[in-house]
This record gives sequence, C-alpha cells and structure tokens, in this order.
Amino acid sequence: MSSSKQMILGAQCTSYGASSSAWRNEAAAPDRLTNSDSIIESVKKAEEGKFHFIFMADHPALRDDISTSSPSSTIDPIVIASQLVHETNHIGIVLTQSTTFNYPYTVARQLKALDVLSNGRMGWNAVTTNDPRIGANYGETIAPRQERYARAHEFIQTVQALWGSFGQNAMKMDKERGIFADTSEIEPIFAQGQYVSSRGPLPIPASPQGQPVIFQAGGGAEGLELAVNYASGIYSIASDIESSRMHQAELKLMGERLGKNTEHINIFMGLIVTVGDTFEDALNKRRTMLNETVGGLEDKVMHLSQLVGLNIPYSMLHESLPEEWLAMLEAHPYQLHSQRAVNLFKQGYTVFDVLAHGVTDFHRTIIGSPIDIADEMQELFEDGGCDGFTISPDRYFDGLPDFVDKVIPELQKRGLYHTEYEGHTLRDHLNVPYQYGQN
Amino acid sequence: MSSSKQMILGAQCTSYGASSSAWRNEAAAPDRLTNSDSIIESVKKAEEGKFHFIFMADHPALRDDISTSSPSSTIDPIVIASQLVHETNHIGIVLTQSTTFNYPYTVARQLKALDVLSNGRMGWNAVTTNDPRIGANYGETIAPRQERYARAHEFIQTVQALWGSFGQNAMKMDKERGIFADTSEIEPIFAQGQYVSSRGPLPIPASPQGQPVIFQAGGGAEGLELAVNYASGIYSIASDIESSRMHQAELKLMGERLGKNTEHINIFMGLIVTVGDTFEDALNKRRTMLNETVGGLEDKVMHLSQLVGLNIPYSMLHESLPEEWLAMLEAHPYQLHSQRAVNLFKQGYTVFDVLAHGVTDFHRTIIGSPIDIADEMQELFEDGGCDGFTISPDRYFDGLPDFVDKVIPELQKRGLYHTEYEGHTLRDHLNVPYQYGQN
Repeated sequence: MSSSKQMILGAQCTSYGASSSAWRNEAAAPDRLTNSDSIIESVKKAEEGKFHFIFMADHPALRDDISTSSPSSTIDPIVIASQLVHETNHIGIVLTQSTTFNYPYTVARQLKALDVLSNGRMGWNAVTTNDPRIGANYGETIAPRQERYARAHEFIQTVQALWGSFGQNAMKMDKERGIFADTSEIEPIFAQGQYVSSRGPLPIPASPQGQPVIFQAGGGAEGLELAVNYASGIYSIASDIESSRMHQAELKLMGERLGKNTEHINIFMGLIVTVGDTFEDALNKRRTMLNETVGGLEDKVMHLSQLVGLNIPYSMLHESLPEEWLAMLEAHPYQLHSQRAVNLFKQGYTVFDVLAHGVTDFHRTIIGSPIDIADEMQELFEDGGCDGFTISPDRYFDGLPDFVDKVIPELQKRGLYHTEYEGHTLRDHLNVPYQYGQN
Repeated sequence: MSSSKQMILGAQCTSYGASSSAWRNEAAAPDRLTNSDSIIESVKKAEEGKFHFIFMADHPALRDDISTSSPSSTIDPIVIASQLVHETNHIGIVLTQSTTFNYPYTVARQLKALDVLSNGRMGWNAVTTNDPRIGANYGETIAPRQERYARAHEFIQTVQALWGSFGQNAMKMDKERGIFADTSEIEPIFAQGQYVSSRGPLPIPASPQGQPVIFQAGGGAEGLELAVNYASGIYSIASDIESSRMHQAELKLMGERLGKNTEHINIFMGLIVTVGDTFEDALNKRRTMLNETVGGLEDKVMHLSQLVGLNIPYSMLHESLPEEWLAMLEAHPYQLHSQRAVNLFKQGYTVFDVLAHGVTDFHRTIIGSPIDIADEMQELFEDGGCDGFTISPDRYFDGLPDFVDKVIPELQKRGLYHTEYEGHTLRDHLNVPYQYGQN
C-alpha cells in the first residue's frame, strides 16, 4: 500500500448511536426518531469533519425489543436523505434500498432525483433483504438466496438502464427557440426480466456525477459477484487485518473470474468508536453506557460465553475469571472478537469490563484516546487492505463531535486523511469514474 | 350555505405552471425540474398567503411531448415533500401516491414519517392510476377499473391499520427508568387481503393530527365510494356551479347509500388563474403565453372546433368568425368550457383570443383583475356547494405571487378567506376530526 494513499471515511449517524442505551443519556435528543433536527446536526458535524459520505442503513421492520432500547432504524432513508441533501453541500449520502421489496422504477426515480438535487452526491446501498419480518411487512416470504440475488442483478441493471434513458445532452431548456428537450436522446429501455420489468424512459437528466454510486453490503460468493458487476463501494463486515485482507483477495479473485476490473471498488470496514481523553476515560464511558443498558445484559454474558468457549454464570458479572478458568478459554479463529475477549480476560478484566470493551458488538470497537484510535485505524488501514472505514460513534450527540474534533485532526496530522474536499461529487470523493446508464 | 363559512384554498405549485409555455419566460427558473429552490420559494409564498395546503399531483411516466413543453410532473412527490416539510411551518402538504404501483407498508411508512416530521401537516391523495404508460414503467398492465378500486380499498385499509399499529401512548422515552416504549401498545396488524398484505407493526408514533388526511381524486361511482369510506378531501374536476353541485349531491347520495356521514368531506374545485391589473392586462398575459407555446396550437384549434361543433381551419387563427358561422355554433351541455367558447366567439373574439381565454384548459380558467377574480371565486363558492379551490397559477414565478399579493387580500376583505392559520395541523385547516388507525 502506498503511503501517500489516504483513507476514505463514512459516518453512520441516523439512529441514536451504536450503543443501545445511547438514547438514555440526558444530552441525547429524545425525538431523534420523529424529528430530523438532531440528525441534520450530526450530518453537518460529519461534513465539518470532511467525512466523504454518510451511510444510512435501513431495516423496515421492528427487530429490536423497543421496551428498553431504541430501534436500530429510524426515519425512512428516502425521506431523511432529501432533507440532508438540502442541508449539506459536500458530503456524500449513501442510503440503503432493497432490491426485493421495491419497484426498480421507484428506486431509479427517487435516487436520481436525489442525485440531481444534491449535485451528484448520492449512493445506493443495494441489499437483497433476508429478514422474514421485513418480508411479512411487504406481504411476502423470503425467497431462497440464489433467487434473491438473481432478482438483484435484474433490478440493478434495470435501475441503471433507467438512469441512462434520458440522454446526457437531452435537456436543452432553450427558451429562445422554445426547445425544452431533444427527445431523440430520450428512449424507453423496454427491460423485460424474469423478476422485474420496466419500459421507461425516466425523465430526469444526468447529475454532475452522472448517476448515483452503487454500494453493496452482502457477503458470500453472490455478494461478491454483485459487487464486482456493479459496486464502487463495499460495506464490509471484516473486523481485523486478516479478515479484511481475505475479503479483498476474494473480491480480486471474483473479478478475475468474471473478467472485471476491481481496482475502483472501495472496501470499507465498519468501526464502532468511543473517544476519551485517555484509554481509561474512554473505557469509563463504555462502562456507563453498559450500565445504562436495561435488560439484555444476560444475553450479552451468554454471547460472551460462546465467544470464549466457557459457560460464564451471570452472577459473576462483576468478577474476573479465576486462574483455573483462564486456562480453559478457547478463541474461535473465525468468530469476531473471540481472540480479543480471551485476551481481555487474561489481562484480568471483569466480565462486565470485557463486555464494556465491545466484544459483543456487531463491528470492531475501538476505545481510547484520540492517539490510541488513530494508531489503531492507521494499522488497520496500512496493513488491512481496506480503503477506509465507516465510523459508528457509540452516541451521536457526543461521540461524533469527539471523533471530528479530536481524532480527525490526528489523522490529518499523520497525512492519513484529507483536510479539504478535493472534488464535488461522491464519485470524486471515492475516486470512481463517471458512469451513466449501464456502462 | 352560511355566509360566515370561509373558503379553503390549496395551491398546485410544483411544475412550471398551468401554462405549458411557462418555462420559456425569462423569469422562470430553468432548473425547476432538478433544483428544489424555486419550488420551495413558491410554497413559502403560498404559506405567506395562508393557503391551507399545497397539492402535489404525480404522473410517473412521460406523457407529454417534452420537445417543446415542460413535463407536467416534476421531482418525486415523496422526495420534494420532505424538503417542503422542513422549510415550512403551517401549510398542509398533500401528495399523490398510487394504490396500484406501491406497497402499502412503504406508503404508510413514508407518509407517517412525513406526518410526524411536519407536526401533522400531511395529506395523501390516493389514486388508482389508469395510464398504461405508468403501468409499463412498473412492469404491469392496467387492471380493470373494478379490480383497481377493490385493491384501493384494501390498500387504504392496510395503510390506515399500519398507521394505528403503534399505540398513541406507546412512546415513553423515559430515560430515568430506561423505558423506551410500552410494547403492549404496539401490535402487528396481520392484514391479509386479496391484493395486498402486511404484518406490521409500523414503529412510528402518532403525529399531532394522528395520521395523514386522505384525499381522493377519481370520478364515477367507484371514486365516490372510496371518498365516502376514507377521504376528508376531494379534488374535483367540476368546473362550474352546476357540475360542482351535482358532484356534491352524488357524494351525499353515496354517503346515504353506505350509511356514512359525508359532512366532513371537503370538495375542492380546480381553478387556473391569471391575474392582471385589468381584465385586458390579464388577457394580454394569456396571449403572450399562448404565443410562446411552440407546437400544439393546431391541436388546440381542433379541440376548440369540437367544443363549438364547427370545423375551424387553422388558417383563421387570427380572425373572428364570420356572422353566418356564428349562427351555426353549438354548445355541448356536458363538455367543459363549451358554452363559454361559444359566448366568446359571439363577443367577436378571434380564434386565438378564444383560446387565450383558456377554453381548452383542463380546469376552469379565471382571468382578470383581482376584483374580477374574487367576484368569480365568490360566486362559485357561494352558489357552487364546494368547500374551496385548488389554485393552479398560469406561471409560478409571477402568477402565484400575484394571486397571494393581490387576490388573497381582496378575498380577506370580503370575509371569504381567513387572515391567519387558526390551527396547526392539516386536520385543523380542513376542519376534519382527529383520526388514528382505521377509526
């Protein structure tokens, strides 16, 4: 990896934060689910930190027990993105839309509208959706994986064809001669697939980046194949150098198999971040958040038990493991955070403190001073073969400002991160080529 | 009709204006299709004029020949509504969504999100969609009318049930006790219809008006039945006192047949308005707009020929009809503007000038000084049995400001129109009761 290469950063900032108790803090905006003001504020803060994009996940079903924790999804991404587009000027906006529970014409139309309104800052994270609770909300069951991915190919191709159906020079707006558009450059697409069809055209002109950038988040061979064919960004679940390198190698291999260049596909590793003045200060914040979690702690202890291959009773929550147990701990090589959990126990941390380190989180959790965090990010970036990270602050109201105000300057000082937006579009930010239509 | 009753006004302000050449004027924002700034400006102007709501039509297909005229639909209503919600404080926002080419869960979710974000100012104009070009964009043919309406009933019921699935007091946000929501008040709906299904729940709390107001725009018995069952507002194509009264009587009759109260259903007549200092000044504006129309004039002359029952050659565009022709003119009692066109010819207007009066427009066109316009609106309102109007200015950039600055004060002076927003929600504006869920 060239030392002059700089990392690309995305921010996830639409719910209350990666911590499920983030909503309980007195500084958390109580109405983040029903009022966009605090979300807009977060995204403006991310823009102040020159984040290349924000990433909006979506989960159109109630999957969490919201009696004690906030739901992971918030206001519909299309609805909130429109306000974000209007309230920001530089940052890219990547939102998730399913290729299963949607019409290609709707996705093409809404995303291209947002792309022109934002002057070319939109991205689409195309997911196939495998949660039966989501399926049930749309009145359907979940089709087998292969079928979902076959539909996804058709769906994305149809959306891209619709995007390209309004010629790049078709819009004339010649008031003098009374010519609104050159309709010879606007053509139906007549897409007729096995799963989706659309005639078109879609009467929306090109944005400064042509059309939205496609992201992909699914795993496995099907996910890689989709990524190689259409994506410029991959939201990876890799959480360490090894798994990130493996993901990169698999992507390259799939590219070779399909005869496609994968150089322009950026891989982003998800990181949960807690910034403190010192490591101990950051860990204390994590302890507070864990303490504020109502319910679910027993589940976390069970999850931790699985990670280290030992049945830890809940009654031992605030104890360290006895010497003889430590010898029995066993890390699973392919299980996220397993080795880390074992190491933390061996350092003498209590069960509660091991959990406070984030070993049951969905992503890798980085805790520490701004320098600790920059060190860890630098190592992951330089040795991990990823192109950047999507940052999930533990709590948006303070975690994101802390990251922007304290960690970003440290990354910039090291030459690892840009100090200004170099271009104007999301394609500029990601260094991916202009695209219009399917080519 | 009680003289103390005041009219309710909606504004259509999302394309370039009712005139198909509006985009050509030097003052027209050229990028109204791709930039929301001028649309937001129009809606703010409508809010300054205390309009009760704006009405956003939708037509997700290219139906116009856009070589010389602008398309009638613009940015996706969901996308633009989100910005309008954020940029305004009082005005209601009614947007069109199809019950055919949509999932009920998506419509329920996006509209309720907009309703909470706007503090209860959203309305949904539910249409069944009968244009085969739209169907083709969604990969489908248009089902027979009865089937479309059967689906519409299921669709609206499912959306309403989803809206009511999150109990009105379910959101607790009790930070102290760590209780986010009372999940006993959040229940799946298990809707299983012939056309649509959805399990739910939809995790979005009630807005200050409960849920969005439903509008209906379709005609015929099926349209009336839909209106009587669900709507609080009807967008009527009635264009004169007689047809408006007939529409009202039919609605009442349908209400009696179905045993439903129709008192709270507001009927809005569509009006196209051109304001001048004098009648002649307004007519001159219309002449200019007609002159700026490129192509389509021959079609308009043919349309006019049908209206008056006489074949008028295009070569006579700038002539009045000879005396002997006038005697042969025949008005069709059920054809919009037919009698008016005959009258105008008898007053000696040229073919071009008769067209300039708007006799081939989709709605009734009112041309004149602020006092002329107020007079005509007053007569329609007091004798026509409608509850108000949706106003389509000929051109937004000047027609809407002229209406707000000149006609609104005249209506207010006569006590026909409010001078302040009396309430906060769209239900307040329309005088319709709070509703949550299906009841």
